[in-house]
Amino acid sequence: MMQAQPLSFPWSDTSIDDLLGRLSFDERGLLPAIAQQYDDGQVLMLAWMSRDSLRESLKTGTVCYWSRSRAALWRKGETSGHFQRLRDLRWDCDADALLLLVDQEGPACHTNRRSCFYNAMRDEGAVELSAPLNEA
Amino acid sequence: MMQAQPLSFPWSDTSIDDLLGRLSFDERGLLPAIAQQYDDGQVLMLAWMSRDSLRESLKTGTVCYWSRSRAALWRKGETSGHFQRLRDLRWDCDADALLLLVDQEGPACHTNRRSCFYNAMRDEGAVELSAPLNEA
Repeated sequence: MMQAQPLSFPWSDTSIDDLLGRLSFDERGLLPAIAQQYDDGQVLMLAWMSRDSLRESLKTGTVCYWSRSRAALWRKGETSGHFQRLRDLRWDCDADALLLLVDQEGPACHTNRRSCFYNAMRDEGAVELSAPLNEA
Repeated sequence: MMQAQPLSFPWSDTSIDDLLGRLSFDERGLLPAIAQQYDDGQVLMLAWMSRDSLRESLKTGTVCYWSRSRAALWRKGETSGHFQRLRDLRWDCDADALLLLVDQEGPACHTNRRSCFYNAMRDEGAVELSAPLNEA
């Protein structure tokens, strides 16, 4: 199968429009996007993208989400410095979900953990499987 | 940090109720759930869970989703035989997304691919990064 190199950033308008035309955004104009660390495969977070946030991500190579709580573009890392550099992306068979392959600078989670998925259930109840990272 | 063993299946009602009480289901009563192959880290699919589908998954150890298109429980593998055996699960910092660590039997995708995330954009346009698996 085709294993050509990922597109470099910024993507051309032609490639962006081609992609946007293939995706099925929901009634809010959003898609769920999974961020996975590109080299070790760790799932870092799940967030939402609008057409505009996806377009910006593909123009800049740095991931921009849509914040549902703030109803605004969410340039991840803008305040924390913990940017997600986009390496490539995939869309699924129904074209209604994205998998972002990223290089995460520092923690992805606002709790200062590498991944947002740190909660698990054990015999003794809910536990946290990772601790907040120490800042340098 | 605590690294106790995952709970075995079926989970107790106490553990299930504890978990359900911690999660923030959306206005439809659903949560997005990422399925990741537990050993090699491949992201297989994104689907949706209701309280009932999550409860069934934790009782049986086999993943059951909520089909939004059919508005019904979706016992994955029931028709295809391609079951997802649940190994563990995580929830995120906002308690509004799940990460399912699964052992996928055969392809996860209805197109007979291992993962649903097989579409990518390249210089020449959209490409498929994997081919359908051959049935044994």
